[in-house]
Amino acid sequence: MSLVVVGTMAFDAIETPFGKSDKIIGGAATYIAWCASNFTPVKQISVVGGDFPEEELQALADRQVDLEAVQIKKDEKSFFWSGKYHMDMNTRDTLDTQLNVLANFQPVVPDSYQDCEFLMLGNLVPAVQRSVITQLKNRPRLIVMDTMNFWMEVAMDELKATIAMVDVLMVNDSEARQLSGDYSLVRAAATIMQMGPKYVIIKKGEHGALLFHENKVFFAPALPLEEVFDPTGAGDTFAGGFIGHLARTKDISFENMKTAIIIGSAMASYCVEKFGTQRLRELSKEDIANRLSDFVQLVNFDIKLY
Amino acid sequence: MSLVVVGTMAFDAIETPFGKSDKIIGGAATYIAWCASNFTPVKQISVVGGDFPEEELQALADRQVDLEAVQIKKDEKSFFWSGKYHMDMNTRDTLDTQLNVLANFQPVVPDSYQDCEFLMLGNLVPAVQRSVITQLKNRPRLIVMDTMNFWMEVAMDELKATIAMVDVLMVNDSEARQLSGDYSLVRAAATIMQMGPKYVIIKKGEHGALLFHENKVFFAPALPLEEVFDPTGAGDTFAGGFIGHLARTKDISFENMKTAIIIGSAMASYCVEKFGTQRLRELSKEDIANRLSDFVQLVNFDIKLY
Repeated sequence: MSLVVVGTMAFDAIETPFGKSDKIIGGAATYIAWCASNFTPVKQISVVGGDFPEEELQALADRQVDLEAVQIKKDEKSFFWSGKYHMDMNTRDTLDTQLNVLANFQPVVPDSYQDCEFLMLGNLVPAVQRSVITQLKNRPRLIVMDTMNFWMEVAMDELKATIAMVDVLMVNDSEARQLSGDYSLVRAAATIMQMGPKYVIIKKGEHGALLFHENKVFFAPALPLEEVFDPTGAGDTFAGGFIGHLARTKDISFENMKTAIIIGSAMASYCVEKFGTQRLRELSKEDIANRLSDFVQLVNFDIKLY
Repeated sequence: MSLVVVGTMAFDAIETPFGKSDKIIGGAATYIAWCASNFTPVKQISVVGGDFPEEELQALADRQVDLEAVQIKKDEKSFFWSGKYHMDMNTRDTLDTQLNVLANFQPVVPDSYQDCEFLMLGNLVPAVQRSVITQLKNRPRLIVMDTMNFWMEVAMDELKATIAMVDVLMVNDSEARQLSGDYSLVRAAATIMQMGPKYVIIKKGEHGALLFHENKVFFAPALPLEEVFDPTGAGDTFAGGFIGHLARTKDISFENMKTAIIIGSAMASYCVEKFGTQRLRELSKEDIANRLSDFVQLVNFDIKLY
């Protein structure tokens, strides 16, 4: 039984108020794999061009990330995204998007991935996400989906068809509002649960994340940081920590999802400390344990009944 | 030993996306007193005009709010504020401000208030806040101060002189940035602690509140609500719950301040459900206990060590 991750592996060029990166390694599935592989082996589904560095693939393979379903299109170029963050680091402008290999990406789920128990659909064309679900002969125990506003604008019907098939939908606050047509996040989550998912996670960046299920709600803070250096990949890293913990513990109760969200938040708080995936690559088990302990301190309180 | 509260008692006229109020009872000290009196007796310092309803004063007196130092200027009018909230409820425009009795307010601390152990300085002219501190013959065990951006713009030196005398400063996120000149809230809090206060509370509205002390930080979420009906007085209510709990328990440790912030947040989450002080007036002890239990559920999680 295993964790399968689908998403982009790509190049990014990032500008923040603190600096500017060269063309560096990025992509939703890259961040998810770097993060989730701290907790459990990963079977990756993606596509890259001939320009994607062999050593990058090797570095993931060395961490028990199975790359059998990562297509390498030798004569094409990898997906490229370039963006610039504003001072508040919660908003960004896309400067350039070059689909390249992503334009005709048709994922193929190999036989060795058919034992998939946990499926993480990183942000991607909704029809491509759905294609992976339908290629699996047995439905995974848990399907988690990330998406973004772009698909709401260009492919809302496709998006809704995919959302209807998943257990957990992750979106940010403005996307939750856009998808539901409701400003209140509590009502937005209820509306989205009517679309299919039994769980909705609303990410609020530096303001933390909310998990909704039936009438229950759980809140995970973001760690207050002196500096958010580069928020790129924070949402994907969050997703990687969330699904990584669930796949490791094989417990998909609401209680364990709370823990999984804290772990996702802790991992994301590391991700933003440096450009790209750099900080994630350096993390030890001790670093992770220390950051989790910071989160316990951050929200732990004692209420004597009134 | 007692809790003394200083601040405005006033009329407000409020517009929100959900409706418009007539001229209703407001003012920082009004909200603080309605809230804190759930936890401990209050000695109030304020000023009102002859237009302030007698029954409003009586309603507070009935809740063990001592009004000896509330000056009633029969021939003048009470302070009036009118404002309009935007859709996000975190920003508002002031439509009208009439200082009236506040223009020449000189608080007088009566002998019966000299046992003050906890002092809550509601948002007010910084020099007036300071005048109360200096009239107290013995320094209170804990002085908590709320303020706002307006004083940073028109009276920064006066404001800093007052801030230097208090133990806990409460400001919202944009005010913390303005006061410190630093965008990062973590660094902003450190800078403000250099100005005098040993504790800094940064209120983030629907995004919760942060408590800083030395190198420690605690985060209290706001309860996700279907609807924020009227945010007016939420910050004052938060302050009232915070100081009310500390005055009741007489424990000013960091650990107990965490609990106090959760109680402030719980009370504020009730405040915003109706216009003005209306919701606060209806609360039973059971309502408060239920809401506190909601907060425990909201952030309670279990981390097994990695």
